[in-house]
Amino acid sequence: MTTPRPADLGAAMTALRDRQPLTQCLTNIVVAPWTANVLLAAGAAPAMVDNSHEAGAFAQVAGGVLVNLGTPYDDTTTAMDAAAGAAHEHGTPWVLDPVAAGLPWRTTIATSLLDLRPTIVRGNASEVLALTGGSGGRGVDSTASAQDALAAARALAEQTGGAVAVSGPVDHLTDGSRVVRLGNGHVWMTQVTGVGCALGALMAAYAAVTDDALLAAAAATAHLTVAAELAAERSSGPGSFAVSLLDELAALTPSDLEARVTLT
Amino acid sequence: MTTPRPADLGAAMTALRDRQPLTQCLTNIVVAPWTANVLLAAGAAPAMVDNSHEAGAFAQVAGGVLVNLGTPYDDTTTAMDAAAGAAHEHGTPWVLDPVAAGLPWRTTIATSLLDLRPTIVRGNASEVLALTGGSGGRGVDSTASAQDALAAARALAEQTGGAVAVSGPVDHLTDGSRVVRLGNGHVWMTQVTGVGCALGALMAAYAAVTDDALLAAAAATAHLTVAAELAAERSSGPGSFAVSLLDELAALTPSDLEARVTLT
Amino acid sequence: MTTPRPADLGAAMTALRDRQPLTQCLTNIVVAPWTANVLLAAGAAPAMVDNSHEAGAFAQVAGGVLVNLGTPYDDTTTAMDAAAGAAHEHGTPWVLDPVAAGLPWRTTIATSLLDLRPTIVRGNASEVLALTGGSGGRGVDSTASAQDALAAARALAEQTGGAVAVSGPVDHLTDGSRVVRLGNGHVWMTQVTGVGCALGALMAAYAAVTDDALLAAAAATAHLTVAAELAAERSSGPGSFAVSLLDELAALTPSDLEARVTLT
Repeated sequence: MTTPRPADLGAAMTALRDRQPLTQCLTNIVVAPWTANVLLAAGAAPAMVDNSHEAGAFAQVAGGVLVNLGTPYDDTTTAMDAAAGAAHEHGTPWVLDPVAAGLPWRTTIATSLLDLRPTIVRGNASEVLALTGGSGGRGVDSTASAQDALAAARALAEQTGGAVAVSGPVDHLTDGSRVVRLGNGHVWMTQVTGVGCALGALMAAYAAVTDDALLAAAAATAHLTVAAELAAERSSGPGSFAVSLLDELAALTPSDLEARVTLT
Repeated sequence: MTTPRPADLGAAMTALRDRQPLTQCLTNIVVAPWTANVLLAAGAAPAMVDNSHEAGAFAQVAGGVLVNLGTPYDDTTTAMDAAAGAAHEHGTPWVLDPVAAGLPWRTTIATSLLDLRPTIVRGNASEVLALTGGSGGRGVDSTASAQDALAAARALAEQTGGAVAVSGPVDHLTDGSRVVRLGNGHVWMTQVTGVGCALGALMAAYAAVTDDALLAAAAATAHLTVAAELAAERSSGPGSFAVSLLDELAALTPSDLEARVTLT
Repeated sequence: MTTPRPADLGAAMTALRDRQPLTQCLTNIVVAPWTANVLLAAGAAPAMVDNSHEAGAFAQVAGGVLVNLGTPYDDTTTAMDAAAGAAHEHGTPWVLDPVAAGLPWRTTIATSLLDLRPTIVRGNASEVLALTGGSGGRGVDSTASAQDALAAARALAEQTGGAVAVSGPVDHLTDGSRVVRLGNGHVWMTQVTGVGCALGALMAAYAAVTDDALLAAAAATAHLTVAAELAAERSSGPGSFAVSLLDELAALTPSDLEARVTLT
């Protein structure tokens, strides 16, 4: 496959808006509201079906599935196994966001989920390094750079057969062979909780409208980070930035996305 | 009872502001913060007591109770049974919001809760149809119109002895004999997560200040949808709309409500 | 120790911004997103590690820990015991927010947690009175004044060896011997869910940067309430106030804090 170009990102955004993919999220109590609002603003249809009785069956019919390990509990991790298993078996694309990988218990959960071959793994550099045997960061903060984690991301992509996206000031995305870097964004993205988590959900939505996992990850990253740049221009702090980000996620057009994205 | 008129809605709003009813919410992790903020802005006092140890006892003293099935778990469904059971036994008005009814597990839970005679059932058309044996929608999205579901809503109201509110571009409300339609609102209400869920909570608050279940459902609907129209005028997308909606819920006066509501 | 003066509050704020303390929150589903955003805006690093497998180990390495009883479940209360126990044993400062103390089940939990000597207990007057054997309020609302609870707060502080902060129009803080009153704030703080809960989290963050528990509680209170006054000037209701509060928490400087705080 060719490396995604701006026009491919714009086409993916058009497809997202046309198809409004049903995006199942098994995520954490801190970011669930924000994640649903980001998906709605961007043009997807969130469904937060995260109990062990329904998660597996729902993952068979969803367009894409997000499994986010922010606040795992015994009950919800059972549901995550069911959802990822059903997604893997039935060909539903799914995204693993190994929040705070490096903490031992959840690292074991994340490592086990890798066997179900997530379409996309999204994390910061510390989290990606932790999944490949490196040392993790402190909670959700990354203490390593995205560039540092690129080799680990490549290895992880080869293991899963999917794409791996490492978030940072410059996002590094790879499917093992191809590498894409996106340079948009704003520092306020790190001062609003759940921006990275919402990016994982948006990747699951985009994975529902394209078979190219790297393109899905890149289009979601571009949609969010370009909207963030526009939002920052209208904001006076992290509170107003979060509000404007939702407005801009909805208002952004494919042609504006193509014109503003910094893709190398 | 006579069919609610605008002046009745305004009087109910005055009662809500005067009495600030304690409104117990057993709701989902996606909308819990937003629901509490909507209740506070409107003039009620939220109390999110949703554990199985306390939910039943609290429902005896609350002014109104909301049971919302957005993200049910084994633990919280036990609490929901206890709260609805205590509300039913002690005469506390309670609202059932059967989010995503149509998914088999939760449909069973919702159907069982109907035996405890909810004062109001609130849902979209697909959810109401699913409760009466029809086929459900895809997650929280409705694939049927409120008008389509009116016959089912009437039947459901006769079964529970309460009111049933079907949300849509035009909201259809009935208690089996009377029918009320409210035409206010804005499309951005569908692009913010939990607007419908918060409406259910607001109905529980209004049910605490009037014995007429249909009036409570109509007053809550009018309060939210008129505020939404005003908020949309000051907003540039779903993010700023959600913020302005809270401001307008607080600022709206009974006389403005009566003047702007579209009630037929 | 001397009673905190405005310059001490400003110095604590400088330390918070410099050190960005890792603040572990075991809190409730209603306020978790808002709490994380308040911590981020103020300058701390939230980590919402609240499962029973990881909470204890994380509390050993966190800068400060919050235990908030807003929506306790069997699973999360186990994690709260583990986190508070580890914090107590390893010298991590920790804050207990006994939300809605007065309800019997959670009062038992809160009372048991007092044995682990929280660095700070934060609540409204009814909650503090309930912890010392008085009668509680109705849910999260206080039906007593902070002044009424001062004697109970002193007794509680002597029991724990830490500080006790009673929220109200004037906040009353004591460590048994010293008493501090802070008069800043705005009535909209009571119309946004979780402002008090976020204050507890901010106290845990400040307790990570000073050994004086009373100073930590006072600095957090001043940071939040002065920001609230500034935010209210730019807001038109509870929705826009919450957004502006995050902006002002980030923008407030130590010198502005010292100039505006009302400390007696």
